Amino acid sequence: MDAVVGFGFTRVTYSVPASRAILERANIAELLAQDEETKDADVYGWVRSLRKQKKIAFAAIGDGSTLDPLQAVLKPGDAAQLSTGVAVKLSGTWQASLGGKQSHELQVETIKLLGENDAEHNPLQPKYQTPEYLRTIPHLRPRIPANALLLRLRSQVIAVLTQFFFSEGFVQTHTPILTSSDCEGAGEVFTVSSNATKDSVQTAKPEKDAQVEHFFRTPKYLTVSAQLHLEALAQSVDKVWTLSPTFRAEKSDTPRHLSEFYMLEAELCFIEGIEDVMSVIEKMLMAVAHTLGTSPLGAELLRARETPAKNAEGGEDEVGASVLMRRWAAMATGGWPRITYHEAIELLQQATVDGKASFTFAPTFEKGLQAEHERYIAATVGEGWRPVFVTDYPSAQKPFYMSPSLSTTNSSGTEGTVACFDLLVPDLCELVGGSMREHRSAELLQAMEAKGVASGSLDWYQDLRKYGSVSHGGFGLGFDRLLCYLSGVNSVRDVVAFPRWHGRCDC
Amino acid sequence: MDAVVGFGFTRVTYSVPASRAILERANIAELLAQDEETKDADVYGWVRSLRKQKKIAFAAIGDGSTLDPLQAVLKPGDAAQLSTGVAVKLSGTWQASLGGKQSHELQVETIKLLGENDAEHNPLQPKYQTPEYLRTIPHLRPRIPANALLLRLRSQVIAVLTQFFFSEGFVQTHTPILTSSDCEGAGEVFTVSSNATKDSVQTAKPEKDAQVEHFFRTPKYLTVSAQLHLEALAQSVDKVWTLSPTFRAEKSDTPRHLSEFYMLEAELCFIEGIEDVMSVIEKMLMAVAHTLGTSPLGAELLRARETPAKNAEGGEDEVGASVLMRRWAAMATGGWPRITYHEAIELLQQATVDGKASFTFAPTFEKGLQAEHERYIAATVGEGWRPVFVTDYPSAQKPFYMSPSLSTTNSSGTEGTVACFDLLVPDLCELVGGSMREHRSAELLQAMEAKGVASGSLDWYQDLRKYGSVSHGGFGLGFDRLLCYLSGVNSVRDVVAFPRWHGRCDC
Repeated sequence: MDAVVGFGFTRVTYSVPASRAILERANIAELLAQDEETKDADVYGWVRSLRKQKKIAFAAIGDGSTLDPLQAVLKPGDAAQLSTGVAVKLSGTWQASLGGKQSHELQVETIKLLGENDAEHNPLQPKYQTPEYLRTIPHLRPRIPANALLLRLRSQVIAVLTQFFFSEGFVQTHTPILTSSDCEGAGEVFTVSSNATKDSVQTAKPEKDAQVEHFFRTPKYLTVSAQLHLEALAQSVDKVWTLSPTFRAEKSDTPRHLSEFYMLEAELCFIEGIEDVMSVIEKMLMAVAHTLGTSPLGAELLRARETPAKNAEGGEDEVGASVLMRRWAAMATGGWPRITYHEAIELLQQATVDGKASFTFAPTFEKGLQAEHERYIAATVGEGWRPVFVTDYPSAQKPFYMSPSLSTTNSSGTEGTVACFDLLVPDLCELVGGSMREHRSAELLQAMEAKGVASGSLDWYQDLRKYGSVSHGGFGLGFDRLLCYLSGVNSVRDVVAFPRWHGRCDC
Repeated sequence: MDAVVGFGFTRVTYSVPASRAILERANIAELLAQDEETKDADVYGWVRSLRKQKKIAFAAIGDGSTLDPLQAVLKPGDAAQLSTGVAVKLSGTWQASLGGKQSHELQVETIKLLGENDAEHNPLQPKYQTPEYLRTIPHLRPRIPANALLLRLRSQVIAVLTQFFFSEGFVQTHTPILTSSDCEGAGEVFTVSSNATKDSVQTAKPEKDAQVEHFFRTPKYLTVSAQLHLEALAQSVDKVWTLSPTFRAEKSDTPRHLSEFYMLEAELCFIEGIEDVMSVIEKMLMAVAHTLGTSPLGAELLRARETPAKNAEGGEDEVGASVLMRRWAAMATGGWPRITYHEAIELLQQATVDGKASFTFAPTFEKGLQAEHERYIAATVGEGWRPVFVTDYPSAQKPFYMSPSLSTTNSSGTEGTVACFDLLVPDLCELVGGSMREHRSAELLQAMEAKGVASGSLDWYQDLRKYGSVSHGGFGLGFDRLLCYLSGVNSVRDVVAFPRWHGRCDC
């Protein structure tokens, strides 16, 4: 297991009977780090590959704890019973290797096969298989070492974030998945029902009046954001966060969108402006990047990217180790550039005039930033590698709940801006979005009416402004996108174990 | 912020500009712990109560960081602008108190009101309000200090669990919420759709053929358990866990059931039997209880229970501090009794014969353990306070995926038992359930057929047995129930911020 350097995670020791040794069993990562010769070493894992020679055979064993296989040396006769993918317990002597590829190897004395393995018909074969094909077998895909590494990356980033927020006095909360309201006031939502029996739905014969009687009296939706509920909880304990699943029923088919995805959201009270929110994000991502840059897991990620594949996905090249290192370094450093939306538009317009850039969509205050614009900002303001905060967007482009900017920088004077920001990172563009929330009841109601948001189901949200209201703000970070960015994986479909998107929810 | 004693959580320090001081601002818990006189102290919080005298006024200020209010001393004229519940920034001198109730108090020099507050019409009033009423205002309820404490309890337990599993080499995963399969092969599930537009559902006029065209091609459900997906991931990285929302569309109306609830689930490969799984649970809960018993938050929980309310909920008395302490001590100690189902039934039958107990339902091998039986086992085998593992239930009472017991202890010989267990705790009964999983493909298929589980949507689950199959097992813990047990709260509806149950999903 990788240590999270600098975050004070330590192995807890308990006084438990010897019979409970299951958690003390060394995994392959730990064995590989062990230099001492050991007579009675036990190795549990799956056979990744086999190489049989006349007088000797080699098996590469993996258990998902590291990219590196453990080399097991066998008699050819013993190796006959093995096949690629089979689970085994190998016992023998852990000793210095004669070959040059690894420092140590296991001289196998006994082999125990632990379960069935039809290597021939396994949909997962030990050869190159395209990402598109692998997505059709998500239940087998994580057995590929690079995919197991992505599972461990997710786990480690969650641990660091939990540690970060706990240390900083934030309360981790569980906001509801089933909701009555649609936070953004837009976008397609999934509806939830239980009135039809399972069978009747499966055969596509809905019961008569099936939509009329609801389990919860009125129709409910899968949440599109935890924000509104987090705001309520922030008025209880000031600083709150959650890492929860959110849902969009959009029929988009891009490497950046899923129907089910994890959002990291946080809210803080008693703050004066978005500067405070942005500083939390900066510190949080610094902590994450710092850990990657200093942990064994980070080193594994770099090794996995030493020879990036060309045109791995829809013409996009894989990101190499040097790009990853630059991303982490920029993230770990902090002090990221901050420019206003208006400054950004002016910059883009000036670049067009100067002939430094040409865009398919001409940059205007009204039409908003297109992906090509964001890329240009990342390349120039962010010098091609640093994250960039773009702040104070026109309110017309943003949801009802955002506060007006404290000091508007809208030099064109045509409309107001709101106290919000997007964090843009190179290649991926928007990673985080946040704002101050309108905490005045009359102004909130007015904004809801102006945006055509039905107030009925949000009466409770209005209450937050009537009773003990306080200035507050927060943000949402696309967690799966963050993992893409940190690992150099091009599609969120490959950092999520069982990805769901339009038409795809198989296992 | 409470420290998690013994778990190595430490405050991370960064070199950030002074303008980013938001996270360094002391909360009220930290201020109350400060003995030094401070001239320019700033206090941010909500006014909990006001006491005005002729020459002096007192305000109790809270921010959710502790049960204890901070006492602010004001001039009566200044206090006039304050009302219960209003958010304020108070500045003044933090100094030794003249009164006896607190060691220090804030001599207020300036008051800043931070937002609106209609104290008179606030549905949350500073007087006793029943739990049933408070559940109708979940967006305001956590402002009660005891409810804020429950939010902090959830956060701290999550942090300890994250730390525990990380240290023990488990990989934290995000299993899908939208699924094709119903894990237990029984129980009501929620169905998910997006084909009807939001408006058409709200007005209860479903589109024609609305059920026929599905967003995901076939109908999908909200997950009832992460187990099956966890099993797939365990075959990648050996030891996995998740803390995820799960859903049941049951119309049950009890203090132990919700329609949306959090389950902590884990799976381990390369293990030989349920002893290994039970030892993980024991160590995990020991870690949680140890933290409560040694942290400031634990002390607060005890203080909140010093004078438990009688008949607080449907005739059930609240649990007092001494009961809580006993629960934590039993949980922190480990070495809990383990008996088989058959031993349990024999014990119950013998108790009936001996006249030590009388049950409404006669205990028999076939009919299973009723709540009254579980209570008797907890009271006798668990001596009234220790958790008890009951193992090896008849397979007829359990789902298709459980392995047969290794050495059956079924002395009656009428049917086989499975390698499973329930962890019973006093008062609450079942807290955890787990088993070894059938990892042989023919036997699994046979069990599915015998239990009438449709195999079509579970082909992928069968694959796990065909390719690299390995002995494994795991468990599921009702996370909200655990919080009830640890805090002495009688209903899961009161430890979940926005509880959903049949007919209730308001905010």
